[in-house]
Amino acid sequence: MVRVDLNCDMGESFGTWQLGDDSAILPFVTSINVACGFHAGDPSVMRATVLAAAAVGVHIGAHPSLPDLVGFGRREMAISAVEAYDLTVYQLGALQAVASVCGVRVQHVKPHGALYNMAAARDDLADSIARAVRDVDSALMLFGLSGSALISAGRACGLQTVSEVFADRAYRADGSLVPRASPNATISDPQLAAQRALNMVQHAQVAAEDGAPVSVTVDTICIHGDTPGAAAMANAIRSALRDAAVLVAPPSAQ
Amino acid sequence: MVRVDLNCDMGESFGTWQLGDDSAILPFVTSINVACGFHAGDPSVMRATVLAAAAVGVHIGAHPSLPDLVGFGRREMAISAVEAYDLTVYQLGALQAVASVCGVRVQHVKPHGALYNMAAARDDLADSIARAVRDVDSALMLFGLSGSALISAGRACGLQTVSEVFADRAYRADGSLVPRASPNATISDPQLAAQRALNMVQHAQVAAEDGAPVSVTVDTICIHGDTPGAAAMANAIRSALRDAAVLVAPPSAQ
Amino acid sequence: MVRVDLNCDMGESFGTWQLGDDSAILPFVTSINVACGFHAGDPSVMRATVLAAAAVGVHIGAHPSLPDLVGFGRREMAISAVEAYDLTVYQLGALQAVASVCGVRVQHVKPHGALYNMAAARDDLADSIARAVRDVDSALMLFGLSGSALISAGRACGLQTVSEVFADRAYRADGSLVPRASPNATISDPQLAAQRALNMVQHAQVAAEDGAPVSVTVDTICIHGDTPGAAAMANAIRSALRDAAVLVAPPSAQ
Amino acid sequence: MVRVDLNCDMGESFGTWQLGDDSAILPFVTSINVACGFHAGDPSVMRATVLAAAAVGVHIGAHPSLPDLVGFGRREMAISAVEAYDLTVYQLGALQAVASVCGVRVQHVKPHGALYNMAAARDDLADSIARAVRDVDSALMLFGLSGSALISAGRACGLQTVSEVFADRAYRADGSLVPRASPNATISDPQLAAQRALNMVQHAQVAAEDGAPVSVTVDTICIHGDTPGAAAMANAIRSALRDAAVLVAPPSAQ
Repeated sequence: MVRVDLNCDMGESFGTWQLGDDSAILPFVTSINVACGFHAGDPSVMRATVLAAAAVGVHIGAHPSLPDLVGFGRREMAISAVEAYDLTVYQLGALQAVASVCGVRVQHVKPHGALYNMAAARDDLADSIARAVRDVDSALMLFGLSGSALISAGRACGLQTVSEVFADRAYRADGSLVPRASPNATISDPQLAAQRALNMVQHAQVAAEDGAPVSVTVDTICIHGDTPGAAAMANAIRSALRDAAVLVAPPSAQ
Repeated sequence: MVRVDLNCDMGESFGTWQLGDDSAILPFVTSINVACGFHAGDPSVMRATVLAAAAVGVHIGAHPSLPDLVGFGRREMAISAVEAYDLTVYQLGALQAVASVCGVRVQHVKPHGALYNMAAARDDLADSIARAVRDVDSALMLFGLSGSALISAGRACGLQTVSEVFADRAYRADGSLVPRASPNATISDPQLAAQRALNMVQHAQVAAEDGAPVSVTVDTICIHGDTPGAAAMANAIRSALRDAAVLVAPPSAQ
Repeated sequence: MVRVDLNCDMGESFGTWQLGDDSAILPFVTSINVACGFHAGDPSVMRATVLAAAAVGVHIGAHPSLPDLVGFGRREMAISAVEAYDLTVYQLGALQAVASVCGVRVQHVKPHGALYNMAAARDDLADSIARAVRDVDSALMLFGLSGSALISAGRACGLQTVSEVFADRAYRADGSLVPRASPNATISDPQLAAQRALNMVQHAQVAAEDGAPVSVTVDTICIHGDTPGAAAMANAIRSALRDAAVLVAPPSAQ
Repeated sequence: MVRVDLNCDMGESFGTWQLGDDSAILPFVTSINVACGFHAGDPSVMRATVLAAAAVGVHIGAHPSLPDLVGFGRREMAISAVEAYDLTVYQLGALQAVASVCGVRVQHVKPHGALYNMAAARDDLADSIARAVRDVDSALMLFGLSGSALISAGRACGLQTVSEVFADRAYRADGSLVPRASPNATISDPQLAAQRALNMVQHAQVAAEDGAPVSVTVDTICIHGDTPGAAAMANAIRSALRDAAVLVAPPSAQ
């Protein structure tokens, strides 16, 4: 039976500010990426997020970011490989302790925003992040863009990697995502995104913006939680997968 | 044989800013309290600090603080008990991961600055912090002011507590510290501080600013690292203890 | 003709996080207090907020806060009087420049949250804030709780003061506000708040929670923008004042 | 008579952390660039810095930075042109108010670190920063690297520009600075730097790292204050200029 994980970024509120509709999306996903304080997510938001996931058996991962609260971690920053290592360790550890007091364990690490994109493209940062995860706990999984430097780096240091695709983002012919600032970067129609997700799962391919087929490995599908209609999107994708008899479940540990 | 731990706050640099003379003081202490990012100590400083301690076998503890970088965690803040719990978990977890990648384990938790003083006086905050430590790892030790609410709270939830005294700070008759802003709050003469430390170890008493004897439990003596002459102070205290045949060693796990 | 100002805190979004319904409330008020980056309001949010106010002729003021983003400036902090002076100057100056590039001038200063409450009660902080405002520009007005230390301090250093009342907050017999954490601290019914506002304007009195009459000076009425139904509240208060032939207008410069 | 300004970054302490030796360097320079809180410089440090400069008649400028405290504003960040505009306005305004309470006026704006380098190379950022300065006060001067996009942008929007050279930094053949991370990026010998400064003033040329002559406009010479021996460097440069009968003075307003 074909199997895929559905993941979503959560816990991206901060202090008095609310973001996303976590409780509405949680029923549809099997893994979440929890903001760890550098782009969003204060310690109390983190605990509430982990508790909510734990209550429904959704697995959790750390979602470390560049230190950029006002830019929500979406602005690339010229950090060094050492800094990438250290900020990954720090944020991962913070979530591990939060998970521990909630009675669960961290399943995975998935870098956030600009750090995710930088780790997809740059070998040195990818390697630093992968080693940070392995050095903290080699049983953790590493989520990264399918075909990216981060997936290669994770494999190279012995981590179980989980290749990610995006149902609601346009791809370039090289397998990278069309940047958010570009027109047509995102797909907002739930049915279209769901069809796209199913196609990727069944055919391991996605059409790039120029129509060229891009090969993808589909271990997990990302659903964005901070867009309007995110819950409808999640519902549509999950339903399409179920109707096609795809098993939606967290990545099975190897 | 009488035994006592010597501890010092370390890793209180931040980014480009240096603070303290950690490498000069490290040879004289047996435990250090590592800043965890809220009042000082970025992820890279944390790792360098833990590595330096690990290299010489000095034990490490988390030094969680109120979130106040510009105030160095020294300004009391009206946080809730829940916030105290959550910020302790977060900072402790961050250090645990840093320790893990350095090949060592966290021995203890000691709140920093204003949080330390608030936890010494307020039962609700003391209880929150103690529970946070226990919920993360019940084998961790809790450092607190001798006779304080934090020590009571730690005992009440089953933690091994380590009662702390200050060789270089004046005491009030109720056992609390004379606030830094007061004249005569600190003692800068190394020999005087050393004599004071030895007296506390040998007699379990210290003279308050009004001359009244204050009973103290002396499991660990704090040396401040961010004052001029801190290394000389540490050397003087360690020498005085050695000359009196006091064993200086980390707290023994019960 | 009786005259009163209606003010509301605005620009309390931050980065990607939205807060309040500024555009819905703006038509009903005559002055706004613009967050200046310490509790909310990044530089871009500040400019958008000032532009929106300028477009409809609403006057603006600086809303300086304690440095506490995660706590939204609502947690008291043991800052010194010097720190209060300096953080007021800094935040006020930032808004003055933003106002300048938007073609308007800053009318007033109103401290935010915990700083507001601390300045209402403590003479030293009140004096520091008042002097900071005067030293930057002695033509600025100072908004403060009616009967508070801040109003006294403003007068003492020659500033035009604007005494504020709250239509949606319960009062204690000493004229201070019932803290938010208490039950019945806030009034959510728009008609009740509107009636309360009108009574204060017409009779210079408000009933404390124990029923005792509290004398108030009503130069401006605060409407909270971050509560659900804030626009309806603003509309109800403005309508009640209009129906009673009260002139709603910014404070007239003396 | 040949005339040149000597400038130095100052006020780069933060909270409890000290950086640089401002009081030792102040006697040798004629303009300083004051950190405005985003990479260094809290409100109290800013005021102390401006007071010290005012006491000896040294002119002050704003030194706005990317929002990166832990990276000291030295890591490039993918900010938008709008964000560059807004953060310049904000930080400049903050310093203007600080200057105002100290009885002086801001003379100029000079971006810090990575923002300086980005503004030297990218027209959109250069234009945003120049317009921000002009929109706040068109009488302000704009300091930028000689030959840079920032100088062009400043001229294009009518600002008085002040072209800067570095006595202690190596140049590339295109007139940009050799990045700090490269070997030989900085010159630490005071006499060599002084000779280099004098040559630039007298011949409007500097030798690039490959020996090629680079034409420079020398309105001001930057002295770095955060390097060991900075005061000796400043003294050597000032003495060499004096001995060559060069007038060292702030830029004269046009």
